[in-house]
Amino acid sequence: MAESSGTGRLNRRSLFGGAAAAAGAAGIGWGAVTLGDRQTGDSNDPTAAATEPFYGEHQAGIETAPPTHAAFIGFDLRPGTDRDDIIGILKIWTDDAARLTQGRPALADTEPELAQRPARLTVTVGLGPRVFTVAGLPQHRPSWLRPLPPFDIDRLEPAWNDGDLMLQVCADEATTVSHAVRVLGKNVASLVSVRWVQRGFRNVAPGQTPRNLMGQVDGTVNIAPGTPDFAELVWDDGRAHPWLTGGTSLVLRRIAMTLDTWDEIDREGRELTVGRTLADGAPLTGSRELDEPDFTAVDAHGIAVIPQSSHIARAHHTSDRERFLRRGYNYDDAPPPGQTSNSGLLFAAFQRDVDAQYLPVQQRLAAFDALNVWTTPIGSAVFVIPPGVRSPGRYLGQTLFES
Amino acid sequence: MAESSGTGRLNRRSLFGGAAAAAGAAGIGWGAVTLGDRQTGDSNDPTAAATEPFYGEHQAGIETAPPTHAAFIGFDLRPGTDRDDIIGILKIWTDDAARLTQGRPALADTEPELAQRPARLTVTVGLGPRVFTVAGLPQHRPSWLRPLPPFDIDRLEPAWNDGDLMLQVCADEATTVSHAVRVLGKNVASLVSVRWVQRGFRNVAPGQTPRNLMGQVDGTVNIAPGTPDFAELVWDDGRAHPWLTGGTSLVLRRIAMTLDTWDEIDREGRELTVGRTLADGAPLTGSRELDEPDFTAVDAHGIAVIPQSSHIARAHHTSDRERFLRRGYNYDDAPPPGQTSNSGLLFAAFQRDVDAQYLPVQQRLAAFDALNVWTTPIGSAVFVIPPGVRSPGRYLGQTLFES
Ligand code: HEM
Ligand code: HEM
Repeated sequence: MAESSGTGRLNRRSLFGGAAAAAGAAGIGWGAVTLGDRQTGDSNDPTAAATEPFYGEHQAGIETAPPTHAAFIGFDLRPGTDRDDIIGILKIWTDDAARLTQGRPALADTEPELAQRPARLTVTVGLGPRVFTVAGLPQHRPSWLRPLPPFDIDRLEPAWNDGDLMLQVCADEATTVSHAVRVLGKNVASLVSVRWVQRGFRNVAPGQTPRNLMGQVDGTVNIAPGTPDFAELVWDDGRAHPWLTGGTSLVLRRIAMTLDTWDEIDREGRELTVGRTLADGAPLTGSRELDEPDFTAVDAHGIAVIPQSSHIARAHHTSDRERFLRRGYNYDDAPPPGQTSNSGLLFAAFQRDVDAQYLPVQQRLAAFDALNVWTTPIGSAVFVIPPGVRSPGRYLGQTLFES
Repeated sequence: MAESSGTGRLNRRSLFGGAAAAAGAAGIGWGAVTLGDRQTGDSNDPTAAATEPFYGEHQAGIETAPPTHAAFIGFDLRPGTDRDDIIGILKIWTDDAARLTQGRPALADTEPELAQRPARLTVTVGLGPRVFTVAGLPQHRPSWLRPLPPFDIDRLEPAWNDGDLMLQVCADEATTVSHAVRVLGKNVASLVSVRWVQRGFRNVAPGQTPRNLMGQVDGTVNIAPGTPDFAELVWDDGRAHPWLTGGTSLVLRRIAMTLDTWDEIDREGRELTVGRTLADGAPLTGSRELDEPDFTAVDAHGIAVIPQSSHIARAHHTSDRERFLRRGYNYDDAPPPGQTSNSGLLFAAFQRDVDAQYLPVQQRLAAFDALNVWTTPIGSAVFVIPPGVRSPGRYLGQTLFES
């Protein structure tokens, strides 16, 4: 297997070099992939045939309406890899993603038929802190790109933490996600090792906020694309690091739910814990999901209707800056022996600046949040998400390596 | 937790006893669940709102067109449980399944909102050999209900084998499967422990056979409902065991795929391994998926076009009796440290008689099958599937306990 990985490296590299050379010389090859160049084997099946654009100012998978399935994969650079290896990985991933997301097989795809159902596939690439060290570019590392500080609520398991490179792969079909994860991982297996794989899912119904596995409507107050200051909150403007213009950051927290004890408290207790009703997610001071919560309202006894200790009271932004895009997925893995469940949330937050936007909220929740009794962070990772690939012939992260 | 399970047991039992008593007295309670009584919270979302009938001669989840998601759960009876406990479990599961499959919360469902999207949910219950011992009914155990004999190809991991009770939970939404699995497991947690949970998925497109993670069209030659002798091959006629009339059996094999080495052989090699093309699943002697394979055809050199060692040549029935319903799911779990993938097939076969129908094919494949190089059985279990619940007021497996 080590043998075959080695061969894969050479084959893939020469293939790749060949195509890149051809592209340079004749304007064809992998550079010839054009915008809107769609070709799928399932044109009679709308879900399977749907594609999300690959090229653009930003990477897909952030503004994109979340599909039903996601996999997050953390990789470590193998000992001895260098700047060129990182560039090689990013070029391979660019090429793979440009093809797969449009329903076309990756280069030397050994299961090309599994690429025929893109099902809104997106591939989003992130870089961990060590990439900047290995690549010799410490001056280009955003100051917020480091593990979150430890919190008292954390019970982090090293197996779910950190990583040098990250892939977020989303699609409306699980088989599509599996194939993309395999192709993307396999083609760089000689250069990286898999650190963790986290698979998740969510319901998708037009105009409906999905529910998490505690049964709550989850995702109501969010800066969906269309929010007036969405771009300001999510996309980097390049002020600190020109290379990052159009990029962002991802905080991924694996948060276990203790459903056995959660199920012991009554409905009222659960609703006070979050500050919203279970039936339709309306704030306890309102009657509809989208009603603005009134955190100052008190009952006849002068007690806050939405408890100050509730999750939404604690999580609510205290300034416009403290907002970010939540784009999480439920997880429900096989329980370890002797346990009844192994489920929770792959909490994924995208924001321009982790320290300014995410951290204050996380600190507040860690200091106190009624929900903490039933939720436990068991994994944590932070990545910088480079800008999108603007046009064929370019690669993910290129602005970093050229700066 | 032991405390709370204990309480759960009592609560649930008294609730249940109460409802059953009420049903007896006044014809209401859990007995009042009526056929076609549908009520979902998502009537504007066709996928989420779709239901499969619960009551009938046969359990759902066998003839039912396979939804996109499945979970198979194996349970062991806790030490000290007896015949009444088994009946209690089956009554609880009947009640839970009758409600959940129709988009209604289970009794005392702590996340009732998660029941609002049935998404074609089916719950299929199976019994392992030990149930007949514990219940003191050894004379009613079908002769084929025992672990499959060991095969040379097996590398069985005890964690995936056997079980006293089995649930197959299928739906078109992963959250629905998670909720149903949790409710069904939780409500009997004081009486059983979880032995294994196996989650799987498949693509579902009208008129298309799905693909497995080796990229093959998988499921072409199958006794789909509509096959003239489907009933004869799948449903027990009660000759040996009157209680089993309308029931069947499930063989569940967890079969790992070694994708790393599979990816090293070329397309021709892969097609010769199975005997069908990768492009569209046509037999090597034909041009369309549904063409009848010609196992006698030879090429100019007198060599069989479909190799005798190929999977389909070996798996093909040598008599009409050697057929069964395949209803498998892909699995793709997080790889253990140091490995790149952890995927394969949850191979699920339904047949009236394991020994007469399944075993000869499995023995032939174990003796030789070109595919064995890349596939390894790592789990194996056999269950009897009792008939369906014909009408409200009855429970799954009742014919066994009344016989
Ligand atoms: C398993 C863990 C968690 C669960 C089950 C959970 C659940 C919820 C629910 C049900 C809501 C109300 C509906 C909505 O607006 O989406 C909510 C709101 C929110 N959550 Fe969480 N959450 C979790 C963790 C977190 C974490 C780790 C953060 C950030 C550090 C966070 C930040 C927020 C924010 C900002 C809101 C909106 C508050 C507002 O302004 O109304 N949540 N969450
Ligand atoms: C990971 C393991 C397996 C894979 C990847 C696999 C794959 C396939 C494929 C691609 C076909 C051809 C298309 C079709 O007719 O569905 C097929 C056919 C078939 N397989 Fe398998 N299979 C596996 C295990 C098994 C096992 C364990 C059995 C039974 C013991 C089995 C029984 C059959 C039968 C009966 C057919 C139809 C043969 C015919 O009459 O043409 N397979 N399988």
